[in-house]
Amino acid sequence: MAQLNHETTTGDVLSAYLQGQATEFLRSLRLHRESTTDAQGAEDSLEAARALRRAARRIGGTLHTFRPLLDQEWAAGLRPELAWLCSTLAREHAFAARLDRLLDALHRLSGTPQVPAPVTAGAPAAGRRSAPAGRTGWAQPATRGADDQGSTPRGLTVGAAKAAALLERQLTLARTRAHSAALQAFGSSRFHAVADNVAVLASEVPLIRAAEDLKPLAARAEEELAEAVAGLPLGQAGHPYNAEALTHGLAADAEAAPEAQDLPWLQTRTLLRLHRYAREVLVGSPDDDPRLAEASHALDRHRDAADAASAAASAARTPRIAPATAYALGVLHADQRHEVEAARFMFHQAWLRETEAVSTP
Amino acid sequence: MAQLNHETTTGDVLSAYLQGQATEFLRSLRLHRESTTDAQGAEDSLEAARALRRAARRIGGTLHTFRPLLDQEWAAGLRPELAWLCSTLAREHAFAARLDRLLDALHRLSGTPQVPAPVTAGAPAAGRRSAPAGRTGWAQPATRGADDQGSTPRGLTVGAAKAAALLERQLTLARTRAHSAALQAFGSSRFHAVADNVAVLASEVPLIRAAEDLKPLAARAEEELAEAVAGLPLGQAGHPYNAEALTHGLAADAEAAPEAQDLPWLQTRTLLRLHRYAREVLVGSPDDDPRLAEASHALDRHRDAADAASAAASAARTPRIAPATAYALGVLHADQRHEVEAARFMFHQAWLRETEAVSTP
Repeated sequence: MAQLNHETTTGDVLSAYLQGQATEFLRSLRLHRESTTDAQGAEDSLEAARALRRAARRIGGTLHTFRPLLDQEWAAGLRPELAWLCSTLAREHAFAARLDRLLDALHRLSGTPQVPAPVTAGAPAAGRRSAPAGRTGWAQPATRGADDQGSTPRGLTVGAAKAAALLERQLTLARTRAHSAALQAFGSSRFHAVADNVAVLASEVPLIRAAEDLKPLAARAEEELAEAVAGLPLGQAGHPYNAEALTHGLAADAEAAPEAQDLPWLQTRTLLRLHRYAREVLVGSPDDDPRLAEASHALDRHRDAADAASAAASAARTPRIAPATAYALGVLHADQRHEVEAARFMFHQAWLRETEAVSTP
Repeated sequence: MAQLNHETTTGDVLSAYLQGQATEFLRSLRLHRESTTDAQGAEDSLEAARALRRAARRIGGTLHTFRPLLDQEWAAGLRPELAWLCSTLAREHAFAARLDRLLDALHRLSGTPQVPAPVTAGAPAAGRRSAPAGRTGWAQPATRGADDQGSTPRGLTVGAAKAAALLERQLTLARTRAHSAALQAFGSSRFHAVADNVAVLASEVPLIRAAEDLKPLAARAEEELAEAVAGLPLGQAGHPYNAEALTHGLAADAEAAPEAQDLPWLQTRTLLRLHRYAREVLVGSPDDDPRLAEASHALDRHRDAADAASAAASAARTPRIAPATAYALGVLHADQRHEVEAARFMFHQAWLRETEAVSTP
């Protein structure tokens, strides 16, 4: 990360930022390749992949916001490739975090303490997920079969344990696949083309209007964010316990309905990121506005909870599960949809604070 | 209801209040006996029973708060009998309201409009509940059997419809039993003894200290309420989305755990009633403090939502239900526990408003 503090806000500031992020990308890539295959290496590898994604997101966002100042064809070619890379690398982490979130919630709902564990775990290859029962801290269900249909008071705890085991199985499988896909991506010619492009960027940024002021483009990113926020149902979100996030939770098209109401929030999350990266470009250092950080945190929580709620609903559609398991997954789904609603409330609170710190510096 | 406005606040005020409520009790009882057996008669009968309960609650509460001023043995004998009568008569209405609340919630969760219907329905004998599908507005599930295990997107709507049918069956049965029990109570010698006692009260209140001021005893009722409120976790309740009400929602002892955290709120509800009745005695007219009315409404909502959540959890323990049904009941249980949490938040908001109007007039 370039810690520059240029007074000018023209092309050289943009070049410095992009070169800094490109350098960070290449450094992370080197670390990732050098990481060993033992447990410590798996941690290092994930950490390197995270830093690489972080730089790739910033390069992609900056190419988007300041596209009129850059070689059009080059930027238009690189951006979707960076997006592909980010989404491919993000999925392994996302499945691990989703499982942790759901297991945490099941423990909270059951009133049993969760075994402490870091949120971002090692790669499945490192064996971190090899012992589900030990990992989750759930006692094995005492009985299996037709008996645990929830007819005893203990049924629901059996249900929670079975729900945990089912989610662990499904999300660990998804995570292992995502891990393989990421490894495959790292070895692909498509990835090497991206890395070559970023290496070029580290030495020379293809500016076409080096003298033009960056501020109007940064201001445009801020306006787009403000427009998206103006389209959100903030009045409703600011009214606690409005029960909106769970509406349609049992609708016929179970997948479509909640996603439809989540979409504007997810789009706002993307635009808030672009705004924060544009601020970083101008300031030359990571954005540290506490209001934007909290709004950003709220939208991350929104996305994570919405994805976790979907995973619980999806697990409940597994054929031949016990009613007690399905019941626990229903409680869990509703719990996570309320987390979505809580995240909207949190965003509303953060956003409506004094707006003085928001304007692009 | 005696619309008195005495300047004094001694025994004659207490006598006037008790005589007014006793007269109301006897009037309601006459209306109940005179009600016909057709649909209109069933509505009249329920309305009369509600008025009778209302008067009985006030007499019982007043006997409790002002017990040092009344013949001890007589008051100690009558109070539990009034409590028995109130709880016996309340159950039919409670089951009907619980079913309406749960069906409303299922419709909200499914994004389908509920068929409008009065919350307090006619007696089951009047046939209001005889056609569940027409009543709830649910389409009959398209398929029955192993197919609707929730493996299709439509599965969850089938689940919601089946959950509605299950709750309708269970709560209508409970309501029919409560109706029979209430009819039996009305014909019992135990009830006749209560009615005779109330008839005596309507003509003469057995005061033992007619000259003593009522205010210290009314103030004691207010203090007991304040002590109960001080024991509530109001700080937590005032923090929206604290997720406390659903904690232990999947605990091993599913019945016991949520009830334990609900208990102080239910006790506060009882003490708030006693405080409001004591205010009525002193003022001689129904309590109309909007702050107390809202706090009272919040605690009613708390009780109703907690009972509805228990009913959903209990229905989920029915043997041999489909996983999709169990899933819908899990979502419903969590939804109602969040209603409990919302009610606590609402109570917090009402209670922390200026307290000037609270002090006994």
